[in-house]
Amino acid sequence: MQKYFISKEEFKNQRITSDDVFHITNVLRSKVGDSFIVSDMNEEYLVEITELNKKSVCFKIVKEIFNNNELPVQVTIFQGYPKGDKIEDIIKHGTELGAFSFVPTLMKRSVVKLDDSKIKNKTERFSKIAKEAAEQSFRKIVPNVEIKQFKEIDFSDYDIKILCYEESAKQNELINFKKTLKALKLNQKVAVLIGPEGGIEDKELDELIQKGFIPCALGGRILRTETASMYVLSAISYELELKS
Amino acid sequence: MQKYFISKEEFKNQRITSDDVFHITNVLRSKVGDSFIVSDMNEEYLVEITELNKKSVCFKIVKEIFNNNELPVQVTIFQGYPKGDKIEDIIKHGTELGAFSFVPTLMKRSVVKLDDSKIKNKTERFSKIAKEAAEQSFRKIVPNVEIKQFKEIDFSDYDIKILCYEESAKQNELINFKKTLKALKLNQKVAVLIGPEGGIEDKELDELIQKGFIPCALGGRILRTETASMYVLSAISYELELKS
Repeated sequence: MQKYFISKEEFKNQRITSDDVFHITNVLRSKVGDSFIVSDMNEEYLVEITELNKKSVCFKIVKEIFNNNELPVQVTIFQGYPKGDKIEDIIKHGTELGAFSFVPTLMKRSVVKLDDSKIKNKTERFSKIAKEAAEQSFRKIVPNVEIKQFKEIDFSDYDIKILCYEESAKQNELINFKKTLKALKLNQKVAVLIGPEGGIEDKELDELIQKGFIPCALGGRILRTETASMYVLSAISYELELKS
Repeated sequence: MQKYFISKEEFKNQRITSDDVFHITNVLRSKVGDSFIVSDMNEEYLVEITELNKKSVCFKIVKEIFNNNELPVQVTIFQGYPKGDKIEDIIKHGTELGAFSFVPTLMKRSVVKLDDSKIKNKTERFSKIAKEAAEQSFRKIVPNVEIKQFKEIDFSDYDIKILCYEESAKQNELINFKKTLKALKLNQKVAVLIGPEGGIEDKELDELIQKGFIPCALGGRILRTETASMYVLSAISYELELKS
């Protein structure tokens, strides 16, 4: 069943007026009486369409849904801004895999340069990608996306800080990551930093280590920047959500 | 340092004549005296260029490299053939993550139809993608890629058979996958089957269960078909390669 994240306003009025109207009427070709799920990121309901036209979809609530498939820790992916549109796949797949938020991070070796107007446009686009991916994978929340300069980030708010560092893989350091995940506690805030294609510059690296980031190897192979976040999120889910 | 997989013939002649010549001379602009790594999927050597032109690159061996970053089990990804070019990303990222081989599998709900000539072309293209990804992530082997019809596959050769099954996630079944990975033994052959976008058809499902596939949920969320193999391979690496 389709799920839509709607605003508190739409929720109160029981009337959807966003872009989702197009999806409901033209893509799914829904009719009066059809059902879907709405969420305001807090409560979640099964609803039924009572009225619809090109501009709005009215619904009535059928029942509340109690469903939580969020990871037991809040993972923020600080992704060194990569080339091309890789960041879009990282947000899409990372949302499926349960990331809490994304900070595409402009680091010294990021090739992409963005001015304020580009940052605004990109942020809107990335937020839309996160919303659609969250709807498809039935997330309870939509991950927040905020582009930042590396030097303006305050990491002090995070309980655990993981640095994906390819030198650790080369040195055959295979302990830090698993040890860190095994020590995670419910609802902790986890920062995961991944460098861009060119890696992390020396001064940035010093700063990260000083701020308490733990350099971790992700298995025995060197991963591309766009694959690292998927490894981390899959491993966190595997360690914390699955039982044996 | 760049790595190239070369043929036994090239290895014996200490002379590369494949497409890699273009990469060595035009992309990397290498010169006589420059070094790179060659592998025939068995032995691996650091070599130095002794002579090069547009058609061939001759080298001499500097030293043997003893390096194994292969997963401790052989994982074959049977990927229900998906839409568009998703299969290419699955092969690329799956190779980075250590897959042993890929079988893009034409299943009942695969939208794509392929005749024999298309299968030949696609196989060549996918094998090239696997080779390049293997070189980039310094794999010891290049994963084999072979497109097959579901009904012609013989699964009897595999020790452990994992079925990525979204109904398992919906039923909140969170035991099978981790239990299976924890029981893996060195060098076992693992088959991982993932349905295409439309899922696995009922008869195919019955057949898989009958052949010993274990239905597994991959965490608490429904994953897209192209994300499932990355979750499985990351989790296998995490479980078997990392220590705590």
